[in-house]
Amino acid sequence: MPDVEGFWAVVPAGGAGTRLWPLSRAGRPKFLLDLTGSGRTLLQATVDRLEPLTGGRVVVVTGAAHAAAVREQLPGLDPARVLAEPAPRDSMAAIGLAAAVVEREDAGAVVGSFAADHVIPDTGAFHTAVREAVEVAREGHLVTLGVEPTHPATGFGYIRAGDPLTGAATARHALEFVEKPDAARAAAYLEAGGYRWNAGMFVVRATVLLDLLHRWHPDLADGLRAIAADPARLDALWPDLEKIAIDHAVAEPAAQDGCVVVVPAPFGWDDVGDFASLAPLLPDSGGPVTVVGDPADVTAVDAGGLVVAAGGRRVAVVGLEDVVVVDTPDAVLVTTRARAQDVKRVVDELRAGGRTDLV
Amino acid sequence: MPDVEGFWAVVPAGGAGTRLWPLSRAGRPKFLLDLTGSGRTLLQATVDRLEPLTGGRVVVVTGAAHAAAVREQLPGLDPARVLAEPAPRDSMAAIGLAAAVVEREDAGAVVGSFAADHVIPDTGAFHTAVREAVEVAREGHLVTLGVEPTHPATGFGYIRAGDPLTGAATARHALEFVEKPDAARAAAYLEAGGYRWNAGMFVVRATVLLDLLHRWHPDLADGLRAIAADPARLDALWPDLEKIAIDHAVAEPAAQDGCVVVVPAPFGWDDVGDFASLAPLLPDSGGPVTVVGDPADVTAVDAGGLVVAAGGRRVAVVGLEDVVVVDTPDAVLVTTRARAQDVKRVVDELRAGGRTDLV
Repeated sequence: MPDVEGFWAVVPAGGAGTRLWPLSRAGRPKFLLDLTGSGRTLLQATVDRLEPLTGGRVVVVTGAAHAAAVREQLPGLDPARVLAEPAPRDSMAAIGLAAAVVEREDAGAVVGSFAADHVIPDTGAFHTAVREAVEVAREGHLVTLGVEPTHPATGFGYIRAGDPLTGAATARHALEFVEKPDAARAAAYLEAGGYRWNAGMFVVRATVLLDLLHRWHPDLADGLRAIAADPARLDALWPDLEKIAIDHAVAEPAAQDGCVVVVPAPFGWDDVGDFASLAPLLPDSGGPVTVVGDPADVTAVDAGGLVVAAGGRRVAVVGLEDVVVVDTPDAVLVTTRARAQDVKRVVDELRAGGRTDLV
Repeated sequence: MPDVEGFWAVVPAGGAGTRLWPLSRAGRPKFLLDLTGSGRTLLQATVDRLEPLTGGRVVVVTGAAHAAAVREQLPGLDPARVLAEPAPRDSMAAIGLAAAVVEREDAGAVVGSFAADHVIPDTGAFHTAVREAVEVAREGHLVTLGVEPTHPATGFGYIRAGDPLTGAATARHALEFVEKPDAARAAAYLEAGGYRWNAGMFVVRATVLLDLLHRWHPDLADGLRAIAADPARLDALWPDLEKIAIDHAVAEPAAQDGCVVVVPAPFGWDDVGDFASLAPLLPDSGGPVTVVGDPADVTAVDAGGLVVAAGGRRVAVVGLEDVVVVDTPDAVLVTTRARAQDVKRVVDELRAGGRTDLV
């Protein structure tokens, strides 16, 4: 199948992934890691997944500290298409800058934003959904891919879908974006049906995105377009840009105005927020312990869970049914899937103790 | 207080300690390790503890593979007093050979056997008990130190004590030695009272020990005395010596004959059989996690248990209430105190898999 004409992928590569310590570190964040043992990092897998749609039209936006590593991991990408943010200014500035750069190069372009650290095992279903989203976006809509919830997650925002969009295959009007719910509300969303996870996958004409942004945040839109027009102004203009998420800046107000469409995303998706969410994404290791690394490095006796053998050493687990062991050359983490979210607290403690060498 | 005239310590240094893997290895067994972080290995601590009683009259018996390491750890001991067994032939041959060597040097000597890998925190109480045991042993008795049970242990044999020995401070006749009991029987022993743990601490005149042995195992006694008379015959005679424990060879039949005395050992004692038994012997680390090594290397979040930080790395534990983590440069073990006995199975699996480099 040919690539999608005029479609550009925007890949925000940010976030430290502190819940994935000690694999992820400040200097080696989640998206630069091959978390699933596939042989490709999350960033590379993201670009690989988009390649058949974009034909190489990809812009990555990342922190200045990681731009060199990103370029090294993506040798096929023009280094100029890796945009380096002088400082983090949240997702609207990141995606908006990429859209403004694309807009100048290709006035009719449709951009799709896909975070560099998400995992989507079913590439075929992903392509089908994105192709439909691009077609709908060409009509001027702000399109979001809405992931079918598999459980009452409290870690994601939700999108409430309304009536089908006339003439579209599966797209529906999006009624509203709702913030991360508590457990009871998340359960109610699943019960009610019609709610989708907001995975931050937006597909929209670059010009539409920036024009929408201009309606509610004109200075931000103007600033981004000014930088795209003259990249030399990046360092001067960037610090004064408004720091706001794309959901708040554009998606929520646009949904209230009735101009957001949701395309169902009937595929598995995960943002690999912690080790508990990593385990189900991994290939079966043939036993109750899922192994990242060489299973021959792991000895399990009456044990189950996840072992990341990345320290070049023997890892032995005895008598723990749901353990997470992450072994690296300078640190080893031991926890459970149930407590995987609290790994962040280790990073907090190390940082508080001045051990920035370890975080 | 002066040392005890004519008293010699015999220190059998054997046993691999496979339940203490990965700290203990075949080439670096338990007795060569500083398990408690005291700065002294178990072997050194054993000899230190005996020094005020022996004035340096110590004979260590160990496997040929470990003789060099033993001599290195005990630079104050005449290297000739480290006897190297060509192959393991159980405790009777080991202790008997040492007794035969001592007998030739000091015909009236009283020998006391104290395993190299046991922990006795209260040195003063230990000295008091051994001094009484030596006095009783001079009269020709086979004396054993009977440790006050603190729980219905199934991992130790028991000694049943009878009437007080006339004229002695605390010694009693020993009625019988009983094998390691099951849980119900162990509980019954505690309930009944009068039962003591058999810690393998025997105190007896060297000549009495060998003469008793000669009554029931004449060839073994003759062989040991022959080697002591001409050490050059060790390699020739050793392989044919009977392989039997001192309890079966001498202590049990002697008790039946009424010539064994038990001196109460009112002190804490542990043979550090696994990581569960190690934890209570360690100094308080000031938190729910007991640390061997530098507590600054350990980050614990809602965690309790034992961490051995011997790998030169950060160890982080999150949300496990009773975990055992043992970190070494080439292997890390994760288990619980309840399953500490099963660490042996890791060693079995590694050996079965040909990983003798790790065991």
